[in-house]
Amino acid sequence: MNDWQFTAADQQVLQRIMQLRRDVRGNRFCRDEIPAAELDRILQAATWAPSVGFSQPWQFVLVRDRAAREKIAASFAEENRKAAPLFADKKREQYVQLKLEGILETPLNIAVFYTPSPQPVLGQTSINEVGEYSVVCAVQNMWLMARALNIGMGWVSILDPSTVKAVLNAPADHKLVAYLCVGYVTEFCEQPELETLQWESRRPLPSVVLTDSYPAPES
Amino acid sequence: MNDWQFTAADQQVLQRIMQLRRDVRGNRFCRDEIPAAELDRILQAATWAPSVGFSQPWQFVLVRDRAAREKIAASFAEENRKAAPLFADKKREQYVQLKLEGILETPLNIAVFYTPSPQPVLGQTSINEVGEYSVVCAVQNMWLMARALNIGMGWVSILDPSTVKAVLNAPADHKLVAYLCVGYVTEFCEQPELETLQWESRRPLPSVVLTDSYPAPES
Repeated sequence: MNDWQFTAADQQVLQRIMQLRRDVRGNRFCRDEIPAAELDRILQAATWAPSVGFSQPWQFVLVRDRAAREKIAASFAEENRKAAPLFADKKREQYVQLKLEGILETPLNIAVFYTPSPQPVLGQTSINEVGEYSVVCAVQNMWLMARALNIGMGWVSILDPSTVKAVLNAPADHKLVAYLCVGYVTEFCEQPELETLQWESRRPLPSVVLTDSYPAPES
Repeated sequence: MNDWQFTAADQQVLQRIMQLRRDVRGNRFCRDEIPAAELDRILQAATWAPSVGFSQPWQFVLVRDRAAREKIAASFAEENRKAAPLFADKKREQYVQLKLEGILETPLNIAVFYTPSPQPVLGQTSINEVGEYSVVCAVQNMWLMARALNIGMGWVSILDPSTVKAVLNAPADHKLVAYLCVGYVTEFCEQPELETLQWESRRPLPSVVLTDSYPAPES
């Protein structure tokens, strides 16, 4: 039995870590190595995440090799070049000026994979995606622990997963869930950069909460 | 600029919240209502999650209505009946004895939906799943904040999402990411129940961490 009661002060600490966590990009990273003990705490935090059926379906590849990272950065560049024209006019001008990753500016990248089980997994029999979702919970734990350690993390999603898998020799049935850039930072931004730039505005809580159901469809 | 430096004590608080968070099921929930201020803190925590392109693609349906929950509990029962035969012999005997949800034992269920954007989303142009993954990050924030508030949460994944969507009148293009049962608890278990029952064993960190890449394939 764990009957530990957290206090108002503890809740405040958690709240502040969540509020001050940022997606960090290459223009705010330092090159200093992450000490092994700090990295270990970030990875341990991943393993405390919930996982469907206690399946722990995650693997973490610590990518420091420069040649591998250059190939992955090239995949980012190509995918990013294809993405820009999808945005119209002013948004496109803004898009091409954004720094969206820190693959080469950080001392460490972490590729996070979902590893499916050959046997049926308790709780994953109706909705298969919950396996991947467990891995995402692990990533969010890593992100919060990194911020608590005053270490920055950025999630790069503008990538061709098949390229990343090929570079890292990942088995065919493993799925790339997240590609993370990790390092100390020159600063954590006050707000998400896309909020500051008014790319998107923050949605107030009442606008995303519904009571009991969506409105009944018009008949 | 947010240059807040978290301390070793803060890191310890976060670590403890992560380690003592549990998936809670109906045999350990109390029926006491969650005060509005506490629920608000759990939902606010969701909105501090990272989201791809600051898209905040989440909606939260607070399900208290008994009739709706009975229909959703019936979907669980049906899916669970179909799941049991997938497990062999002893596992099946164990499976059918497990209490795997708390839909009716909690004062509140929260259905969490991913709401796709009609416009292209920054960062979601190569890997579409990152939209859903943002919603999962929000769920993990909720779970941690709930534990910090000494409130239990359980994630029910043995459901037919189309049934849940129909019961809640959810728009066709919204995707059910998580169905959560929320309430005070009689106890938080010391370990994940499936670990205690030796359903699965805990994977030591070194077994899930690789350096630089997977081994090169045999040629």
